[in-house]
Amino acid sequence: MRWEELSEQPCSLARVLAILGDRWTLLVLRDCFLGVRRFDDFERSLGVTRHVLADRLKRLVEAEILAKVPYQERPLREEYRLTEKGMELYPAILSLVNWGDRHLAGVEGPPLEHVHKHCGQHMHGVLVCSECGEPLHARDVTVREGLFWKGRLLRRG
Amino acid sequence: MRWEELSEQPCSLARVLAILGDRWTLLVLRDCFLGVRRFDDFERSLGVTRHVLADRLKRLVEAEILAKVPYQERPLREEYRLTEKGMELYPAILSLVNWGDRHLAGVEGPPLEHVHKHCGQHMHGVLVCSECGEPLHARDVTVREGLFWKGRLLRRG
Repeated sequence: MRWEELSEQPCSLARVLAILGDRWTLLVLRDCFLGVRRFDDFERSLGVTRHVLADRLKRLVEAEILAKVPYQERPLREEYRLTEKGMELYPAILSLVNWGDRHLAGVEGPPLEHVHKHCGQHMHGVLVCSECGEPLHARDVTVREGLFWKGRLLRRG
Repeated sequence: MRWEELSEQPCSLARVLAILGDRWTLLVLRDCFLGVRRFDDFERSLGVTRHVLADRLKRLVEAEILAKVPYQERPLREEYRLTEKGMELYPAILSLVNWGDRHLAGVEGPPLEHVHKHCGQHMHGVLVCSECGEPLHARDVTVREGLFWKGRLLRRG
């Protein structure tokens, strides 16, 4: 399978990675969630070439994860803001960050702490079941084919 | 910044991506969570070259995300199993999959449905605050520097 074929795979992760699987894209998104909005600020934060950065931002706009919004009329200047669809990537990003905090932080400890404005506590994210609210562990979850795909994806059962 | 420098960045996401940011690595992990354990099965599932697959599996073992476990003695045959550290990547993977299910599934609908064994329901993951249990939205979370990093990372405040 070539990488270009990923977006056609009947696998949601493959389709997501066809958009986000690029090396820099998730770091651009991290910056977005930290409040970065302008091209020059992304460039400074990431230390990536302008060409690569422009390309990754364009792809994120095409995927409707970011939107270009004017912040000045003459001359026209635009900044990049997360759409609602982009905002919904937050659980995935925070889960990756939390895993890094836990396993890769080293003796200095995690660089950033996350504080929940609602309760004011230093916290991390916990994934729970949408139906019963219990924390989700891989061993407690099984998969079955969606309606359209019945009998076409899984070899077992 | 070069990609090789990522693992030294004071950013947990950058460090995670230094391990997982490779194009195929997250798809190898997806297969692990779906129960794939043997080299030939990964190869069949991913359609990637044996060379690339061997390299990615080796890196995941080095990162202690997978462990090689013998399943036959003569001749020695080994399979790849998620360690506890690897299992803890499940929230990140499921969150990415759920986002893909929601935004990229197309008219056929999501290929796989997830069922929580505890409650028996077709479900998705919801990220909640470890302290107060409320669902986490990006707008409700703020960051501050960890103890070691005070005054060194954030320009604001």
